[in-house]
Amino acid sequence: MVLRNILESNEADAAVNRDFFTRKKIATVNMMSSPGSGKTELIGKTIDILSSELNVGVIEGDICTSMDSERLASRGIQVVQINTEPFGGDCHLEASMVKGAASLMDLGRLDLIFVENVGNLVCPAEFDLGVDSNVVVLSVTEGEDKPLKYPLMFRTCDLCILSKTDLLGVLDYNADTARMHVLKINPRIEIIELSAKTSSGMDGWISFLKNLVFIKKNSNCSRHTPAGE
Amino acid sequence: MVLRNILESNEADAAVNRDFFTRKKIATVNMMSSPGSGKTELIGKTIDILSSELNVGVIEGDICTSMDSERLASRGIQVVQINTEPFGGDCHLEASMVKGAASLMDLGRLDLIFVENVGNLVCPAEFDLGVDSNVVVLSVTEGEDKPLKYPLMFRTCDLCILSKTDLLGVLDYNADTARMHVLKINPRIEIIELSAKTSSGMDGWISFLKNLVFIKKNSNCSRHTPAGE
Repeated sequence: MVLRNILESNEADAAVNRDFFTRKKIATVNMMSSPGSGKTELIGKTIDILSSELNVGVIEGDICTSMDSERLASRGIQVVQINTEPFGGDCHLEASMVKGAASLMDLGRLDLIFVENVGNLVCPAEFDLGVDSNVVVLSVTEGEDKPLKYPLMFRTCDLCILSKTDLLGVLDYNADTARMHVLKINPRIEIIELSAKTSSGMDGWISFLKNLVFIKKNSNCSRHTPAGE
Repeated sequence: MVLRNILESNEADAAVNRDFFTRKKIATVNMMSSPGSGKTELIGKTIDILSSELNVGVIEGDICTSMDSERLASRGIQVVQINTEPFGGDCHLEASMVKGAASLMDLGRLDLIFVENVGNLVCPAEFDLGVDSNVVVLSVTEGEDKPLKYPLMFRTCDLCILSKTDLLGVLDYNADTARMHVLKINPRIEIIELSAKTSSGMDGWISFLKNLVFIKKNSNCSRHTPAGE
């Protein structure tokens, strides 16, 4: 009952975010994963590639510390840190936090905002942030079975990135099995395999983002796949 | 307010578990980590080593699926699966779930029970299960910064296992930095580096467990480090 009220209140805030970012024509991507899947590294490398064409900002979610936002801000981009510790150490971001963070940014200068969620393969999937795309990053070191064991996350996302593929040669990992498990949970999800370290596979991800920005700039309708639906 | 009531109710159940396992003289270990850190693999290898000396059981926590419990049960040991999906897909185990699972086991034949928690580096640390030891498994693939970013987990545990050390040669990972971060959060925590794959470092872990079982068999007092304290 209580959880339901929290989710309903979050849903209302997410709708506000969705309208707001649509009016501002800023594409927004919610990056979710277990701790240590390489989200920050991937976002950093992505910004390096996109910086000549697009203005990218980051809303960085962590329980505590500002290490990740400092890593990203060193590129001269806009980064706003959300620490959930004052909110009871929340294990996820909520739409109201994203709204508050966005209000601190110079939005007129942005084409794309990454929201890097708290590292957690469970709870963030329950909270719609009102963004255009929910992306789950699953490191190949985590094994092939995770989509079956954490299905809500994979059901909620429209893109699954299988990251750290540079390690494939030293792991007992079957990429076909992993893909099969992802698609069993969500047959409509897109899958991209990449290594932020070697840049292998980054092209598909960059195309995905450019497409998202193009749609946002040229339409009044946003592409919704709210978390929790 | 509501969270506090849940935690207080859990604390009462944890106290019941603690008394119960002390009377039964069964050592209990709560294994926590991010998804994919290698908990199940480590528990399996540990049972293979200990099986000639100790009777080991497992309480296996997952949101859904019984893949991990099947992997472990194939060794002919007692395994009880807890799926949290009927509890709203809970992202952690609670003491009452452990109590219920233990009631399904033939406890007279057990020396040691592993509780494998849901893969999540945040929420499980908030829920005391009434066990003897809380152990966090942190894969070296997750990076050195996780103790600083998820401090409650490392504060709650009395042992940190740095796992998958067979991958050290191919990672940009500084083991000294990782150890320093773990000890910064919890100066009293024990640290063991190991690879379940190659068995390197397993000796220290096996000694830790044998010591726990010895203390439990020979004392009416349990070694408490409740989660959440």
